[in-house]
Amino acid sequence: MKSGNIFDSIPDKLDEEVFDRLIQNNKVKIERIISKGHISPESGWYDQDQDEWVIVLKGQALIAFESGEEVGLKEGGYVNIPAHTKHKVKWTNPKTETIWLAVHY
Amino acid sequence: MKSGNIFDSIPDKLDEEVFDRLIQNNKVKIERIISKGHISPESGWYDQDQDEWVIVLKGQALIAFESGEEVGLKEGGYVNIPAHTKHKVKWTNPKTETIWLAVHY
Repeated sequence: MKSGNIFDSIPDKLDEEVFDRLIQNNKVKIERIISKGHISPESGWYDQDQDEWVIVLKGQALIAFESGEEVGLKEGGYVNIPAHTKHKVKWTNPKTETIWLAVHY
Repeated sequence: MKSGNIFDSIPDKLDEEVFDRLIQNNKVKIERIISKGHISPESGWYDQDQDEWVIVLKGQALIAFESGEEVGLKEGGYVNIPAHTKHKVKWTNPKTETIWLAVHY
């Protein structure tokens, strides 16, 4: 069976966010994202064609929505982002890795 | 946005495994499963029509496959179980909750 541990193989250098695809077929993509102080660009929003369910497994993050709503996520915190709900990552902890699991569906 | 924390609202009584559906549409089902010493029945196997990607977020578990392979999972451990791959949960830690996140796709 294809198995692993989501907390393994964390790169030492995290100049850029790291995206690791774990599963992808025509229905779903599951990926691990590692951030360390990374945030979305100041201007513009993510505007995705698919729904996304995302959970923070380590670290802390703050997601902002075009509506003005903000959702803070710590370990175990999840949020569902419907397709075309404009959002951005406003903050991730710069002192430690934030490990996300994202399910695009 | 629909948000929450996967470690919240753990029932005190866990006589049976607890299944909480977090997301379901025609492509994917995401659920939280809480076990505490629960294992599959001695005879028979799970035989599912869909693929399942499952990760242990707390606790420990051992999954056995009809092939004889066994996969031990601790915090962060995941395994992908293709459709119709017969398997069972051989063991979960009886002393603490095991919290699983399962993506059926």
